[in-house]
Amino acid sequence: MDTPISFTTEFTVEWGDCDPARIVFYPHYFYWFDTCFQHWLRHAGLSQALLTERHGVVGTPILEAHAKFLVASTDGDRLEAEARIETFGPKRFRIDYRLTRNEQLLVEGWEVRAWVAKVDDRLRSLPIPPEFVAALASASNDAAPPAVVRPDRP
Amino acid sequence: MDTPISFTTEFTVEWGDCDPARIVFYPHYFYWFDTCFQHWLRHAGLSQALLTERHGVVGTPILEAHAKFLVASTDGDRLEAEARIETFGPKRFRIDYRLTRNEQLLVEGWEVRAWVAKVDDRLRSLPIPPEFVAALASASNDAAPPAVVRPDRP
Amino acid sequence: MDTPISFTTEFTVEWGDCDPARIVFYPHYFYWFDTCFQHWLRHAGLSQALLTERHGVVGTPILEAHAKFLVASTDGDRLEAEARIETFGPKRFRIDYRLTRNEQLLVEGWEVRAWVAKVDDRLRSLPIPPEFVAALASASNDAAPPAVVRPDRP
Amino acid sequence: MDTPISFTTEFTVEWGDCDPARIVFYPHYFYWFDTCFQHWLRHAGLSQALLTERHGVVGTPILEAHAKFLVASTDGDRLEAEARIETFGPKRFRIDYRLTRNEQLLVEGWEVRAWVAKVDDRLRSLPIPPEFVAALASASNDAAPPAVVRPDRP
Repeated sequence: MDTPISFTTEFTVEWGDCDPARIVFYPHYFYWFDTCFQHWLRHAGLSQALLTERHGVVGTPILEAHAKFLVASTDGDRLEAEARIETFGPKRFRIDYRLTRNEQLLVEGWEVRAWVAKVDDRLRSLPIPPEFVAALASASNDAAPPAVVRPDRP
Repeated sequence: MDTPISFTTEFTVEWGDCDPARIVFYPHYFYWFDTCFQHWLRHAGLSQALLTERHGVVGTPILEAHAKFLVASTDGDRLEAEARIETFGPKRFRIDYRLTRNEQLLVEGWEVRAWVAKVDDRLRSLPIPPEFVAALASASNDAAPPAVVRPDRP
Repeated sequence: MDTPISFTTEFTVEWGDCDPARIVFYPHYFYWFDTCFQHWLRHAGLSQALLTERHGVVGTPILEAHAKFLVASTDGDRLEAEARIETFGPKRFRIDYRLTRNEQLLVEGWEVRAWVAKVDDRLRSLPIPPEFVAALASASNDAAPPAVVRPDRP
Repeated sequence: MDTPISFTTEFTVEWGDCDPARIVFYPHYFYWFDTCFQHWLRHAGLSQALLTERHGVVGTPILEAHAKFLVASTDGDRLEAEARIETFGPKRFRIDYRLTRNEQLLVEGWEVRAWVAKVDDRLRSLPIPPEFVAALASASNDAAPPAVVRPDRP
């Protein structure tokens, strides 16, 4: 996949997401990272439940997550969230996120997700099926669909 | 500070912390990172409220956070959490975390926190006061107190 | 106020809102109750921060909350939330909530909120100002503004 | 069951549980209600996972929840939580909760939980098995075990 694929959605910072410093309690940003990915799944006609039904995967477990918090946000702020996938590894993929408010970058980060299914009652890491990649690409902001699946980055 | 300082506390994974994949919904691990630091503050005779009262800081805002998820955990698991600070920068510090279950490492990660106070109604990054470092050191698992404050790592 | 006032907003049930039983972990419904009220505030040109600035109130503390869970909901469900206020007491008011999915009632409940401000460094329950009532009424789904403020219900 | 059964556990209010009004964001109290019940299950040698395995129940779904908030609590407060069951209905039971801080009552409320299992791929409300009642009673603060199962209260 030479052309990255991406997806954009929106969130509102709510009162209950903020801490006594009057800014977002930072774990909530990871909730928005995850939720941005879930929105992408839905726009691709998928859901975690459908992935389980079709592929036996249980969630799409996070191997690693990172975030850099540049500017704080608070109750009532409207966040635009962009998720972007540059390449898919055979058994995992990285999603880069950018949260902006009126085009100002607030938070950037990423998740590495695995493709893990239950085989004979044990969880095993399995190759990402091409139809999953194609479904995410079909819901991408960008026109060109992903071309190939690349080896996992170290 | 040549000797790192550290602090250990415990958490239980609760039903409401887990997602439909029956494992912890990953943003909760960052809640435990943050909460581990809050426990350390309390064992040092401090709290966010006291830091505000004494130093004018509002929270100890997170600049960056990272986690690597090695083994999943679920409802009822008992987690031991260790926080460790190697050095303090002049205006920020990094806390490394390790979450284990029966001595098996489940999650490791870190936060970078800033020392930010309201000065003339504006938030400003300020030097970390030595008494804050001394207080955390006094509640450390390790005997030796931190020696010096080092320059911020890039 | 003889005519009730009401406000409608929408939420999506996210993966992270659901528990291992694959349905919403019930405390989240109260998050949506609260958030529905915050949306109403914003559509009325208000926010908790503005209420603090103008009236000295700190939040609008909940005295009591109730919910009846009729039908479960899960990841991806679109919830329509309706908040309704029948009357305002002098110092508190009750908001009734209905959460529906495709017009099917899922959850109904209510909150009683107080009007509490810091006076001489102590929290005191104070009369709800008419301009607050008028602001919520101006953002109501219904045409007629609230008429009068009634005594608190026991 | 003429003698009520009860269970006591403890929680700490954390920074991330509090909102910009510097008090607990109220939905978290329901998290503690639920978690108090989960602690009771564990002290009775049970868990939601074991209930599923043994009885086919999926969670113990909440039909109704209520709370009255008398005194606010904040970051660092130690809460003692008591759960109490007066009687079990045939297919549901009510748990009364009291959260106290240094013996001062902060929050009181209750949940009604159903016994619901998947039968032929459909959720059905089923009679609460006596061994479940006996297990909770065995972990009760009180000596006398529950005697009989009463009809559901309206």
